[in-house]
Amino acid sequence: MRILGIDPGIATVGFGVLDSVGGQHRLVQCGVITTPAHTPLSARLEQIYGDMRQLIELFKPEAVSVEELFFNTNITTGIAVAQGRGVILLACQQAGLKIYEYTPLQVKQAVVGYGRAEKAQVMDMVKRICALPAPPKPDDAADAVALALCHARSVTSLLYRGENESCSTI
Amino acid sequence: MRILGIDPGIATVGFGVLDSVGGQHRLVQCGVITTPAHTPLSARLEQIYGDMRQLIELFKPEAVSVEELFFNTNITTGIAVAQGRGVILLACQQAGLKIYEYTPLQVKQAVVGYGRAEKAQVMDMVKRICALPAPPKPDDAADAVALALCHARSVTSLLYRGENESCSTI
Repeated sequence: MRILGIDPGIATVGFGVLDSVGGQHRLVQCGVITTPAHTPLSARLEQIYGDMRQLIELFKPEAVSVEELFFNTNITTGIAVAQGRGVILLACQQAGLKIYEYTPLQVKQAVVGYGRAEKAQVMDMVKRICALPAPPKPDDAADAVALALCHARSVTSLLYRGENESCSTI
Repeated sequence: MRILGIDPGIATVGFGVLDSVGGQHRLVQCGVITTPAHTPLSARLEQIYGDMRQLIELFKPEAVSVEELFFNTNITTGIAVAQGRGVILLACQQAGLKIYEYTPLQVKQAVVGYGRAEKAQVMDMVKRICALPAPPKPDDAADAVALALCHARSVTSLLYRGENESCSTI
């Protein structure tokens, strides 16, 4: 199964393409979509949408794993990020992908086995699980790979429990 | 000048198409885009985006006036609305429209002349300015017409002051 992990944003969107078969995970590609500062929001949204369409076209994932948003810190930034997430979901929906969302706590739980793990622990586990020489850079790309891994592991554990159909889509 | 006013949302998006020439305003059409409850967010976003594209294609506005978002009430609803606003802005940007945003306070100021006006006063002024037999229904459609009127009046007053170029776009 090929999974596209997405860490939503407006200045930087992290992405990670992961192939997962039988509990083995191979990182195909990861990186970031960046939009220039001091650019109108609508132009940034157009760029994110276009880049998402290209990513999907290029890597042909079957599912996308997107971080769920919480606005407990900066609400102004949060509004912009949510608008970015809107066009990301649109691109995925138009491509017919199955869309799943996970909280940061779920990602840590799935990748490290502990919901309150530090960022460095998540990065280290991403490196180990994907057998990489170092954690992916920048952090947004690594976060996106962690999201893809989270979905891969969630699906596997649901399959073991015979509950795949109950895996929630958004 | 033909202006499309948009009151963003996820369950209901209000729209109002206004022709404004020489301080005279004619309501061309108004209404709402609605998306069914208990539908995945990504499907609702796709519908809003598609309907926005159709609206723009049909009415060919030159500018769009969109409400600015504030999250001082329900943050969960706010996140969904912001995602909806993202795909609305995308559709407008792709169509090459000039995009303007206004706060509710600016809308009340421009339409009623008083930033703390009651909703009923705004509705009544929309009816009077557009010479309608009654305020548009539902309220989201009327709000969208008020947004279009706000932009029409802002542009006019900026023109009087020779400041049209400074009118902020997003």
